[in-house]
Amino acid sequence: MNFNEVLDDCKVYEAGKPIELLVREYGIAPKDIIKLASNENPYGTSPKVKKKIKELVSNMYIYPDDSMYELKEALANRFNVQNENIIMGAGSDQILDFCVKAKCTKNSKILMSKTTFAMYEIYGKQAGATILKTKDDEHNLEQFLSMYKEHGADIIFLCLPNNPLGECLNKDDVYTFLDEINKNTLVVIDGAYQEYASFKDKKKEIIASDLINKYNNCIYLGTFSKAYALGGMRIGYGIAQKNIIQALFKLRPPFNITTLSLIASIEALKDKEFVEECISKNFEEMKRYEEYAKEKSFEYIPSYTNFISIKLGKLFTSNDIANALLKRGIIVRNLAAYGLNTIRITIGSKEQNTKVFKILDEVLEKLK
Amino acid sequence: MNFNEVLDDCKVYEAGKPIELLVREYGIAPKDIIKLASNENPYGTSPKVKKKIKELVSNMYIYPDDSMYELKEALANRFNVQNENIIMGAGSDQILDFCVKAKCTKNSKILMSKTTFAMYEIYGKQAGATILKTKDDEHNLEQFLSMYKEHGADIIFLCLPNNPLGECLNKDDVYTFLDEINKNTLVVIDGAYQEYASFKDKKKEIIASDLINKYNNCIYLGTFSKAYALGGMRIGYGIAQKNIIQALFKLRPPFNITTLSLIASIEALKDKEFVEECISKNFEEMKRYEEYAKEKSFEYIPSYTNFISIKLGKLFTSNDIANALLKRGIIVRNLAAYGLNTIRITIGSKEQNTKVFKILDEVLEKLK
Repeated sequence: MNFNEVLDDCKVYEAGKPIELLVREYGIAPKDIIKLASNENPYGTSPKVKKKIKELVSNMYIYPDDSMYELKEALANRFNVQNENIIMGAGSDQILDFCVKAKCTKNSKILMSKTTFAMYEIYGKQAGATILKTKDDEHNLEQFLSMYKEHGADIIFLCLPNNPLGECLNKDDVYTFLDEINKNTLVVIDGAYQEYASFKDKKKEIIASDLINKYNNCIYLGTFSKAYALGGMRIGYGIAQKNIIQALFKLRPPFNITTLSLIASIEALKDKEFVEECISKNFEEMKRYEEYAKEKSFEYIPSYTNFISIKLGKLFTSNDIANALLKRGIIVRNLAAYGLNTIRITIGSKEQNTKVFKILDEVLEKLK
Repeated sequence: MNFNEVLDDCKVYEAGKPIELLVREYGIAPKDIIKLASNENPYGTSPKVKKKIKELVSNMYIYPDDSMYELKEALANRFNVQNENIIMGAGSDQILDFCVKAKCTKNSKILMSKTTFAMYEIYGKQAGATILKTKDDEHNLEQFLSMYKEHGADIIFLCLPNNPLGECLNKDDVYTFLDEINKNTLVVIDGAYQEYASFKDKKKEIIASDLINKYNNCIYLGTFSKAYALGGMRIGYGIAQKNIIQALFKLRPPFNITTLSLIASIEALKDKEFVEECISKNFEEMKRYEEYAKEKSFEYIPSYTNFISIKLGKLFTSNDIANALLKRGIIVRNLAAYGLNTIRITIGSKEQNTKVFKILDEVLEKLK
């Protein structure tokens, strides 16, 4: 059977290895596995959210309110925008897909940083668009601008802060860049880790309402997967001017988040203290990784997220280290697929990190 | 801002009205609302599944095993196929989308029955494909075949049984039709309600393994939303030859079903008795609707599903009746949007149906 020719060039996203895989393939007990590969919130979901889900578990048989009225109202309040400025997605991933499909055809161009969230390119290729990448791995706005001036772009993706590297542009620099962009280019500000960045450094903070009021060609994306500790529930949102939301809405499949996801996200938004506490602990624990890296003479990228990317230099390879850790029950992300000799580790809980350092010591000693 | 021109012709799916809407707009208490508009299983989710979700609610923060190994193994066993013959979707809806995007571009053609599941056309238009529809509302294979011979098609959708009308073709007739179809045409057999049809009449039963072994251009779609009572959890599956699955897989976003959906579906597959009991009760209750329709001299379409479509004839309009019911807390589906003076009612539980008949009596009396 023949398929759409764009599929020839499409690649599949490689997810962080799941705990179930280590149980199956290495016979490690689930309790002995530490998964620090997908930037989940290591403190688990807010107890208040878990309680609510238990109370309303009987709702599983019924479709969610497809207008998502209550959730949108809560988000509109939180972000100081209107209900009509919001679209929900099965993770902010799905809104990336809407953006690409709404703007791109085979002749379109998409501009992004060399090393950034893999789904930008995957969705771009599904639409048959040409992918343009800057030379530097980390976001470099000069390179973005010169490539934009040379080639133009239908969409620009800015990942602020950037996954999988962790760096984050300053808001003022982003705005200066946006001043140069044509109003027919959709600029996607992927704020999946913004809660972390704005906690660490106010200069990084992108305020969605301010952004879309100044730049009507921008969409801000947020997620419940990271700071809100609902990675498994697939809930993300986009905030933009109404005309953009309406266009994307035409591509939104009905019931695109589950009934329990809807309940969980509404409840999670109420528990601000929980989120703040998780973020605070995240940066406390991140210091330990920074110290560990220094102690071992590894470079790392200062991170505005809940993960840290450690460059392994010339003595070790990320393949060796990631595999050795895997066999010992610790799952990290090997960035070799991005052409980098780097591992990305989600900042775990205190106990998890202590164990990671201990096992990493053993692994480094063995591989020396 | 300009968008992809295919969006100009795209329509948004109109979901059944949610309970929350009646609470908001008519001030009716949730306990007084009966929703029979989206063909949910009125008996609710299996108690075993609810128990499992409560036990594992803490998993919400973690992404699901994206290989969906355990669920695919369970489905492979159930359907007597291999893991590699299965793709999972956020509802079988999402697999419809994969099928369209994998096969269609702007020059493609999609053939379907005049009145059938709305998402076939919606996804088709998103891809810019031309939609071809038979003349009859209900599936008519002679019309399908003559249109296919005249126009060809990249995809044919057969909804067996058909939503929103309820009729179902015989398997033998479907196979005779498939014999005439070119191997480069993808035929989608949407079996969302197959559990109901095969229970009522074995002649309707499509066995997925038999289908894909005989016809390597066919994909069978199933769902956990109806008989398995997990409509809110968005879980569907496609079964086809490996080359088709691999093509669709390139379009599957990672983590496309939630962590709790994965747990729920694995557990739901184990509780066969629950499903059979629900289906049995469904057809017991359906008899009451048939009798009610006869008593009021309404025609109805004999249904192989968990809903019944009642034609309102010349004395009443579906708009009037659906609205009058809505104000009294009963949500049914008005098929006026399909150009039919018909209402589709999900077969509820015994108590629900008794109340529906009572209120319908009042409404008919008032509108007479």
